[in-house]
Amino acid sequence: MYEDLGYAKVDHHRAKRTGVGEVVYGESKTAEQILGIVGSIARKNAKNILVTRLSREKFDYLERELNFPIVYHETARIAVADPDVSLPKIGKIVVACGGTSDLAVCEEAAVTAETLGSRVERLYDVGVAGLHRLLHNLDVLDGARCVIAVAGMEGALASVIGGLVDCPVIAVPTSVGYGAAFGGLAALLAMLNSCASGVSVVNIDNGFGAGFQAHLINRLQ
Amino acid sequence: MYEDLGYAKVDHHRAKRTGVGEVVYGESKTAEQILGIVGSIARKNAKNILVTRLSREKFDYLERELNFPIVYHETARIAVADPDVSLPKIGKIVVACGGTSDLAVCEEAAVTAETLGSRVERLYDVGVAGLHRLLHNLDVLDGARCVIAVAGMEGALASVIGGLVDCPVIAVPTSVGYGAAFGGLAALLAMLNSCASGVSVVNIDNGFGAGFQAHLINRLQ
Amino acid sequence: MYEDLGYAKVDHHRAKRTGVGEVVYGESKTAEQILGIVGSIARKNAKNILVTRLSREKFDYLERELNFPIVYHETARIAVADPDVSLPKIGKIVVACGGTSDLAVCEEAAVTAETLGSRVERLYDVGVAGLHRLLHNLDVLDGARCVIAVAGMEGALASVIGGLVDCPVIAVPTSVGYGAAFGGLAALLAMLNSCASGVSVVNIDNGFGAGFQAHLINRLQ
Amino acid sequence: MYEDLGYAKVDHHRAKRTGVGEVVYGESKTAEQILGIVGSIARKNAKNILVTRLSREKFDYLERELNFPIVYHETARIAVADPDVSLPKIGKIVVACGGTSDLAVCEEAAVTAETLGSRVERLYDVGVAGLHRLLHNLDVLDGARCVIAVAGMEGALASVIGGLVDCPVIAVPTSVGYGAAFGGLAALLAMLNSCASGVSVVNIDNGFGAGFQAHLINRLQ
Amino acid sequence: MYEDLGYAKVDHHRAKRTGVGEVVYGESKTAEQILGIVGSIARKNAKNILVTRLSREKFDYLERELNFPIVYHETARIAVADPDVSLPKIGKIVVACGGTSDLAVCEEAAVTAETLGSRVERLYDVGVAGLHRLLHNLDVLDGARCVIAVAGMEGALASVIGGLVDCPVIAVPTSVGYGAAFGGLAALLAMLNSCASGVSVVNIDNGFGAGFQAHLINRLQ
Amino acid sequence: MYEDLGYAKVDHHRAKRTGVGEVVYGESKTAEQILGIVGSIARKNAKNILVTRLSREKFDYLERELNFPIVYHETARIAVADPDVSLPKIGKIVVACGGTSDLAVCEEAAVTAETLGSRVERLYDVGVAGLHRLLHNLDVLDGARCVIAVAGMEGALASVIGGLVDCPVIAVPTSVGYGAAFGGLAALLAMLNSCASGVSVVNIDNGFGAGFQAHLINRLQ
Amino acid sequence: MYEDLGYAKVDHHRAKRTGVGEVVYGESKTAEQILGIVGSIARKNAKNILVTRLSREKFDYLERELNFPIVYHETARIAVADPDVSLPKIGKIVVACGGTSDLAVCEEAAVTAETLGSRVERLYDVGVAGLHRLLHNLDVLDGARCVIAVAGMEGALASVIGGLVDCPVIAVPTSVGYGAAFGGLAALLAMLNSCASGVSVVNIDNGFGAGFQAHLINRLQ
Amino acid sequence: MYEDLGYAKVDHHRAKRTGVGEVVYGESKTAEQILGIVGSIARKNAKNILVTRLSREKFDYLERELNFPIVYHETARIAVADPDVSLPKIGKIVVACGGTSDLAVCEEAAVTAETLGSRVERLYDVGVAGLHRLLHNLDVLDGARCVIAVAGMEGALASVIGGLVDCPVIAVPTSVGYGAAFGGLAALLAMLNSCASGVSVVNIDNGFGAGFQAHLINRLQ
Repeated sequence: MYEDLGYAKVDHHRAKRTGVGEVVYGESKTAEQILGIVGSIARKNAKNILVTRLSREKFDYLERELNFPIVYHETARIAVADPDVSLPKIGKIVVACGGTSDLAVCEEAAVTAETLGSRVERLYDVGVAGLHRLLHNLDVLDGARCVIAVAGMEGALASVIGGLVDCPVIAVPTSVGYGAAFGGLAALLAMLNSCASGVSVVNIDNGFGAGFQAHLINRLQ
Repeated sequence: MYEDLGYAKVDHHRAKRTGVGEVVYGESKTAEQILGIVGSIARKNAKNILVTRLSREKFDYLERELNFPIVYHETARIAVADPDVSLPKIGKIVVACGGTSDLAVCEEAAVTAETLGSRVERLYDVGVAGLHRLLHNLDVLDGARCVIAVAGMEGALASVIGGLVDCPVIAVPTSVGYGAAFGGLAALLAMLNSCASGVSVVNIDNGFGAGFQAHLINRLQ
Repeated sequence: MYEDLGYAKVDHHRAKRTGVGEVVYGESKTAEQILGIVGSIARKNAKNILVTRLSREKFDYLERELNFPIVYHETARIAVADPDVSLPKIGKIVVACGGTSDLAVCEEAAVTAETLGSRVERLYDVGVAGLHRLLHNLDVLDGARCVIAVAGMEGALASVIGGLVDCPVIAVPTSVGYGAAFGGLAALLAMLNSCASGVSVVNIDNGFGAGFQAHLINRLQ
Repeated sequence: MYEDLGYAKVDHHRAKRTGVGEVVYGESKTAEQILGIVGSIARKNAKNILVTRLSREKFDYLERELNFPIVYHETARIAVADPDVSLPKIGKIVVACGGTSDLAVCEEAAVTAETLGSRVERLYDVGVAGLHRLLHNLDVLDGARCVIAVAGMEGALASVIGGLVDCPVIAVPTSVGYGAAFGGLAALLAMLNSCASGVSVVNIDNGFGAGFQAHLINRLQ
Repeated sequence: MYEDLGYAKVDHHRAKRTGVGEVVYGESKTAEQILGIVGSIARKNAKNILVTRLSREKFDYLERELNFPIVYHETARIAVADPDVSLPKIGKIVVACGGTSDLAVCEEAAVTAETLGSRVERLYDVGVAGLHRLLHNLDVLDGARCVIAVAGMEGALASVIGGLVDCPVIAVPTSVGYGAAFGGLAALLAMLNSCASGVSVVNIDNGFGAGFQAHLINRLQ
Repeated sequence: MYEDLGYAKVDHHRAKRTGVGEVVYGESKTAEQILGIVGSIARKNAKNILVTRLSREKFDYLERELNFPIVYHETARIAVADPDVSLPKIGKIVVACGGTSDLAVCEEAAVTAETLGSRVERLYDVGVAGLHRLLHNLDVLDGARCVIAVAGMEGALASVIGGLVDCPVIAVPTSVGYGAAFGGLAALLAMLNSCASGVSVVNIDNGFGAGFQAHLINRLQ
Repeated sequence: MYEDLGYAKVDHHRAKRTGVGEVVYGESKTAEQILGIVGSIARKNAKNILVTRLSREKFDYLERELNFPIVYHETARIAVADPDVSLPKIGKIVVACGGTSDLAVCEEAAVTAETLGSRVERLYDVGVAGLHRLLHNLDVLDGARCVIAVAGMEGALASVIGGLVDCPVIAVPTSVGYGAAFGGLAALLAMLNSCASGVSVVNIDNGFGAGFQAHLINRLQ
Repeated sequence: MYEDLGYAKVDHHRAKRTGVGEVVYGESKTAEQILGIVGSIARKNAKNILVTRLSREKFDYLERELNFPIVYHETARIAVADPDVSLPKIGKIVVACGGTSDLAVCEEAAVTAETLGSRVERLYDVGVAGLHRLLHNLDVLDGARCVIAVAGMEGALASVIGGLVDCPVIAVPTSVGYGAAFGGLAALLAMLNSCASGVSVVNIDNGFGAGFQAHLINRLQ
């Protein structure tokens, strides 16, 4: 049910339990450890292996060492090993954000959901200080089965969108900002206190977590 | 699109926008204000009007003054005015919690989802310090379209459940505990950092928010 | 330049320095101390003496003991001793808030500004989760020389209004909410991080401070 | 009403709504993104385009690539593209600070207000530990329509000035200091709790926000 | 060297070590425990026994039960058992505060220092928002060997006084205020970051600690 | 392996797994719930059932309703149902504290360990400001297999004892203190940063947790 | 009883007092200072001298300068000077962790305990999101006299293990994670609030402290 | 009374007011600014000019540019321009610290006091985990008129010393430590909550402030 690599016990049972295979969090692992884990997953014939928070340097190493394809999404800092290009994209998830500075987190969410098999539409730079930009794009929200609202600073976007749609909203606070933004804490607290119903929150900058849960929601029938 | 009562602008448009009518947060409103708002909603022929965080005293006042039925869920502290008993219950939501002390928050979540039309199963007191209690009830989780994991103290339940199911998990930290629980902050932070994918979080003690979003997820087709 | 009452040095010079006479903060003073201070100010022929954060009990005591009129604004918890009813109201300040629970803070701001001589319009319960309520009242904001945006929970109202108007916005976070609202901290941080330019912030629940500064702005010629 | 660049929706409507054109926050944008946004604004015949938090490197890139003039304010880290040198300076804003270390934030405020069209006087290094330096410069404060008080560490300057003037004071906490200054938190909290009326606060180091709001106040007639 | 009462080990050696006898902190002890401890100290022929944070109720109990005199300072909430009225008062300590609300803490400091044998002058309600009140009383500060600066809210008084005198300043933050005062945290941080040299700080509301240390300083020869 | 009471799943398997039967945390449970749980445990022939954080009122109810003996430890707020008086006391645990105000937490620790079967010695009021009281009692520490160091305020006792003994020290911060004690946070942080090796920490006021772990340590052979 | 090196007073008495010789914390000492201290300890014929938090660079310096052997544990960042290879390993300590990223802290704990003379078993990457990895290794926990549970993020591992074993559990929060992990604070708070009895906690990333205390527990007879 | 350099208003009046000339805080000033300020002070015939938090690089620049002597204290990071070597050293201040890592802060305190004219004795590495090192040096504390207690981590040294001496103790928390030390916050809170009377506290790492105040105390007659 898992392979023991010493530094890691790779969970081959996860796909069976949760419907999605093990995802590799790349941040605090060495390139060698990531290679070992990806190899272990691939040996079980898994495809479409997500590696998140991966630097360009570690990706280059993986690309050199692996004997199967791996692609890199630069802004999202995500690699997909042995990508399954034939996977059809289902449903509709909208990823919206307040400003240009939130793009990396947005893309982490979008690429995650797309890789898992969801159709994603992007609605970027629709922050609440220029409300007409959001109001002129309400049609993008139509038919969404889940909206991911990404925002730093005061994080108001999640509440505004939450009041406009009839589907679940997943709010992602970002660490964009300075001073009393406290590395995303301001946005996190704002989102947790959203006066709109139907909003839940993931960790600061956790685009992956939002994209993953949005896919679980989107694939429901 | 809304009625202006001076102290409140009752949003009659919400049901159209979001698919669920306006919910009244009873905590910091006077009984008279709540009566006015509930009356305004009812005049638009809405049924099944949720009033959350309602004390027994304010409920008694509402029951006396309203000329249509209103029922009270004691543990959940929720009243439902003009309840729609004919509403069929769809899908399956599981509300799980770590300990007996989390019951009020659980019931707020469960009653909210049930009133909105979801079928709910309860799985109480399955905290991670006695893991076999959860493991012996895995069948309750089968077929769930959304799980609400309610826990105070270290809030570990969300991660454990998140690793076992293939549907979205909404985590609700509770203010149960003392000392370094800091009124639910410990559980909140733990849940935001869940190592399980597919978990999102609502505010401390926000059973309503979890039940509401779970229903939005559960009703997806 | 000041009268020394032992427990207080009443600043009779303030009106000359700042254009507004001394205001009495009633919260942590005894009724006897407040009486002494108000009497000292009145002896200098000042009128329209503001006493903020005054309980009904202390007001009743003042009303009994003073030999000149004093009126009480219940929701605002403000008393005005020797009110100057002939003072003309100038300009236009709008006090807007997110929800019914913010009314006390709104009224503290509004009554402060009105007593100092500003014309005030109220725009209550226009929280961002039901955006059309605000958008349908944009005419109220027209011609405002200063807007006071009062909101608890996620405090998003300040940013939304800040993006819509061409005058300064003073944001007042309120302690409304629970859990991760942390007594108004969430709203405070959100407002400090507003992505809208032209927004500044006062202390949590400080309706007085907002009303006072709004008047200083409004009276500029 | 806006131009969609993909990574940004440039708000061309803002000048109409708020009386001031879109300002570009340069911190977390690439030089290429800033170039695109500035170009989009300029194509609408806007002049005097502010770019804040801009490094010298990114400025050099902009200067090379733009086909119209752009000037750089080194200490303020602000660039002004297509500067409108004919704009008359109106009214009077005083920018005061506690110490030499606050200069960058002061200049951000001063240059912002000047670029928007306000006349600014600077009163630097008048911290409260050497009170006579402030008291000997009270004439500088005369006739000010708004004072910006910039201070790190204990942030007492805002309260002292607030008690001396009859115009609004905008307080800017700075991240100057160490230890229990906690990156400007000490000054921020102090300023929010100012015992002087008429003081409001912007985010830590947010010279731009203070300068912008001061201009909105200063231009009132 | 100490007497063991089971619930307390009364330190009879302290006077020898530190020059001042044991002081009883009354807050979280029962009246019976305080009685036992005071009795134990008195049996060693100590006089002038300080009991701080003592409620009126517990004092009444002590007064009834003790067979030697005990006096109560109401505002300071301090009792002195077996007071030594013949003790000459030496030197000069000034206790200054920002506002009327700080009086209880001031008196705790003043009564402590007086009981230990210091001469104390009081300079109350000289907050920095009305600076002339302090500047007109600079003579009170003349000749002080130590100044205790007591202030809540933004706590700026310590810095202003610290820049005016040539003796040590002990700053006492008070829990006066609301919202972002966070129970005295704002004043505490401000005082710790005082830009004036020669200022040190004690715990929030710790008038006793300031009075005690001021006496240690004042009695130096 | 457990009994399901609806509001609780009583863990009858715990004694087998961990060597100690289920303990009932009384704080946030109703008297009826506690009665149900204690009854369920007793039906499995368990003796010596610990109920912690139990008010006198709830104890009186239990004593009335149970048909087997239950005893109450007033200071510790612990009840023991069906106490096993024949249980021999083994080893040696020392419970030390800094001051009289810490007694309730000390007794919670001591009674817990004693009930589980450990021999406990108490060493109270040996705070570090009167070091000789501790140094004159070093013999009490001799032969201890575990020391529980209970202290509020600055929590220094744990470090001092940790440097003197050769057995594990469990530190318990208490919520004793005021101001910057922040409800025990100061002591908690101090203890976590102890410069003495061999010290670990439990939650603020968690006497039970310390007593429980000390017994686990003490019973090792 | 100690040697005074000026910058350090080396405690030669510690082994007598606590049963373990002085350990050198290498983080904020210069290589020269560490060399001096290690030399001083060695001159007293101590062997097996632990130096923790030692960089590879400082180790290289020590290895060059010392005239007796010193070995380096890379992952643990620990050096052992004059290692005592003949020391028998007693008892059993299990070091378990949630994920690959926690390895450095685990090894610091494990190497510390091993150097002091304990037998250690490692159980890595058994985080609660893949519970079967822990459940399939329960035999590793059998016979443990102490378990060290190392985890970042939500820190749930300590509670789960605490509910499964009958020996003391020492929890070590790690600084692994991002955003609301707040450098290990989330895990620290979670562990302090563990609902499992028998768990105590050391500082964030303090593998040494856990290993040291575990050895004190393990060597008890 | 002051010289205006544009970027600074050099306070030439301070020596008259406070008995000590202006001190230059070097951290966030450029070498050029420091040179200008030092020159301005020297032109008023002041000697013995303290420049704190000065890097070696900035010192080298000053040494090159100044036409009078300047000396550098490496560990203290303090320069003294135009040092007054004939100044007699009076009284006695003891600077004590917990560990080798606190040396820089200790030296900042010691050099400050010495430069101002106080006699200083150093008592380093007497942390409470090896109490005998302090107890064997009690004679160093004899006759001290002020003790500066410097400690990081749990900051217990201040309380222990406070209980042993009869003079004022100034506690300096240091940022030494990791994890829950939170950059000195743990030590700061501990020291503010010292159970020993006679202890006051300065900012984290503020050796200068402690040395300065200690000198003010020490010079009292």
